[in-house]
Amino acid sequence: MPFDKKQHIAIAGGGLVGSLLSIYLAQRGHRVSVFERRADMRKQQTDGGRSINLALSNRGIRALDEVGLSAEIKKAAIPMHGRMMHDRAGKLTFQPYGKEGQFINSISRSNLNVVLMNKAESQGVEFHFNQRIASVDFEKTAFVFQSGEKSEDKFDAIIGADGAFSAVRGSLQITDRFDYSQEYIAHGYKELHIPASATDDFQLEKNALHIWPRESFMLIALPNPDASFTCTLFFPFEGPLSFASLKTEKDIEEFMKGTFPDAFSLMDNPISLFKSSPASSLVTVKCFPWTKNRTLLIGDAAHAIVPFYGQGMIAGFEDCRIFNGLLDKADDWPELFSAFQSLRKPDTDAIAQLALDNFIEMRDLVGDPGFLLRKKIEAKLHQLYPDRWVPLYTMVTFRDDIRYSEALSIGRRQKKIMDDVMQTDDIENMWEHLNFEAIVNKL
Amino acid sequence: MPFDKKQHIAIAGGGLVGSLLSIYLAQRGHRVSVFERRADMRKQQTDGGRSINLALSNRGIRALDEVGLSAEIKKAAIPMHGRMMHDRAGKLTFQPYGKEGQFINSISRSNLNVVLMNKAESQGVEFHFNQRIASVDFEKTAFVFQSGEKSEDKFDAIIGADGAFSAVRGSLQITDRFDYSQEYIAHGYKELHIPASATDDFQLEKNALHIWPRESFMLIALPNPDASFTCTLFFPFEGPLSFASLKTEKDIEEFMKGTFPDAFSLMDNPISLFKSSPASSLVTVKCFPWTKNRTLLIGDAAHAIVPFYGQGMIAGFEDCRIFNGLLDKADDWPELFSAFQSLRKPDTDAIAQLALDNFIEMRDLVGDPGFLLRKKIEAKLHQLYPDRWVPLYTMVTFRDDIRYSEALSIGRRQKKIMDDVMQTDDIENMWEHLNFEAIVNKL
Repeated sequence: MPFDKKQHIAIAGGGLVGSLLSIYLAQRGHRVSVFERRADMRKQQTDGGRSINLALSNRGIRALDEVGLSAEIKKAAIPMHGRMMHDRAGKLTFQPYGKEGQFINSISRSNLNVVLMNKAESQGVEFHFNQRIASVDFEKTAFVFQSGEKSEDKFDAIIGADGAFSAVRGSLQITDRFDYSQEYIAHGYKELHIPASATDDFQLEKNALHIWPRESFMLIALPNPDASFTCTLFFPFEGPLSFASLKTEKDIEEFMKGTFPDAFSLMDNPISLFKSSPASSLVTVKCFPWTKNRTLLIGDAAHAIVPFYGQGMIAGFEDCRIFNGLLDKADDWPELFSAFQSLRKPDTDAIAQLALDNFIEMRDLVGDPGFLLRKKIEAKLHQLYPDRWVPLYTMVTFRDDIRYSEALSIGRRQKKIMDDVMQTDDIENMWEHLNFEAIVNKL
Repeated sequence: MPFDKKQHIAIAGGGLVGSLLSIYLAQRGHRVSVFERRADMRKQQTDGGRSINLALSNRGIRALDEVGLSAEIKKAAIPMHGRMMHDRAGKLTFQPYGKEGQFINSISRSNLNVVLMNKAESQGVEFHFNQRIASVDFEKTAFVFQSGEKSEDKFDAIIGADGAFSAVRGSLQITDRFDYSQEYIAHGYKELHIPASATDDFQLEKNALHIWPRESFMLIALPNPDASFTCTLFFPFEGPLSFASLKTEKDIEEFMKGTFPDAFSLMDNPISLFKSSPASSLVTVKCFPWTKNRTLLIGDAAHAIVPFYGQGMIAGFEDCRIFNGLLDKADDWPELFSAFQSLRKPDTDAIAQLALDNFIEMRDLVGDPGFLLRKKIEAKLHQLYPDRWVPLYTMVTFRDDIRYSEALSIGRRQKKIMDDVMQTDDIENMWEHLNFEAIVNKL
């Protein structure tokens, strides 16, 4: 049975996941206090169209829907129906993400965060800004702040939604038998910008996620509501062709012009932006347990992943939805937290792996005709047997009823079957005559 | 060419590795300051025969030899020529570690540490006790102590030899792109004690490492100079038969008596010792890079491993020897540190894996007649082809000229070959008639 009394829950972090979780909990009638390290972003100048955008897909929309926010969020979103690949000659190839009507959404991270915070406050959530947490007292379920002050020790539970570099997790890490890993990839990223045209139009196809796949690295671009695109270059930190190797403005210009000629010609001040902005790093964080006593980690604090499946925030939103579902039957925090981590850990490990794998797909495979044919055959299988063969991308992105861990394991079986199919003689020309039923029966 | 001026080097940690390293550096003519978190162990009561013992083998002896200490250390060591397995009925089986004359040594950790510290001081090393390091300032190559004080910022280099929970590594961990993992095994350990007999004799065979292999867990015993044995029970923390499941004195007594009858009958107060001592955990720590600017990690701080190959301290001693070798040609700390980590990381990753594998061998396989036969066949191969087939245990323990990473990869190839050999019909009776040359040729 559910908690019969109003609980006082402290959330560390007022980012996307912390804010969404606070709404879920407030809607259940609990008292929720959110402690955020930064200032209130609603009171600061934002950077207009330059704000970083995110891909919002079904699992995330389902959670937003449950708290009554999906309609408002969708209004500001730009549908992206597939990948638009740009080769070195500027030639375009479009690959749909799914069936007609299936798409992901480009949204602004900061706008989404503001909508969530406003909604949370309207439901009675208390936000405390500029509160840097130094550590957690797991016995008293209390925070120690960097100012030296302790929080009132009356919280019934603490939930750390304080991101990839979580302070709550920092306290867990020095408890005994806490498994932990942080692993960086060899690539970092820099953001660049394609402005709207002089007539305020999009300079590239609006409803697509643009990719310039270049095998060992890539550039991508997502549309913004002001008709600009935010571009992100994922590129090695070190090596013969890397952030480290491009030293002068001339190096940068030659590289960008030669590698992404169509994008480069549209960009706003790319050389000085490239030169002045430091490359950001990309980390996968895993840990276990996620809980001690009445404290729990959630979202990136428990499982930060690389961004290549567009599922980082989404996995955190799904955490909130699943956690809320478990709350229906819970009346004991440590038991609830323990059930949540057991249920959820296999899925977040799976999406961590899928996100790493998808970097190779995006930067390398999508430029390969054999790979695009494979996707076409899988789309055909899905069309013929919509329930029996669901492509991996579709399972992850559009099917919120399939767990990430199931998607990973089904996807691996599909890959083996398709590896064989692609060995068929003259597959390029005969693929429409394959025995599709025999293929789907192998799964 | 070597550093032409005297350098001032700070070492964090005055344990086994920090003390040995300080001797190496002082003998080269450098000024060395060691900062140790604990009090001076030489001024505290020690616990007599109860001190924890360690297995000292060739790679460690080679390093001690280079600083002129191996003779002194060997005097206090007890040779162990092989494993003595005890089954549930108390029946003994002896398995030699290597050839005649090859043995490992049981030594006291605290005695070894005292010998190292005394030698270091005699070479001019300055020890500073009760100095808890809070963090490292990598720009200034300086410590910040927990007292808030900063060290004089004149060190030419800092070396963190401060163990598995290294404070120096803690500072590295919050720098960008630092890969880190800490992974605990499901087993913990408690120490028990078999005293000398009434006539001050050893109550078990003196010159052996005793093992009570029980498949999913084990008890081991190492001899001490006072004719006692230090016993260590490696046992799951949780589960149907675990530290958690043995709740009452009666549970403990029934378990110990039923599982290790011969050991139990000789032990000193096992039930109350078992009950009163908390179970200690066992962790593998990996990280990279090991260095930033003029600061380096070494020993457990860079690569803590589980104890089942008896190579934790040894790997740290080998670090010191290899580091000292690189110093012969070095005149730049960051370059030297970078060369050291590149050279050494594959080897410490290898011994981490070997140590985990050896737990399964010790607790389970050594109780299996098929496994002992396999070892006998390998010993025969080694006898016939001493340079072409060196058993894995011998490579790791007795051959300091074979890198851990080589031992791991050769060992894997040997295992595959031996898996096939063990499939031979009637192998128990016909093994001496195998075509040994054909086997060794497969490697």
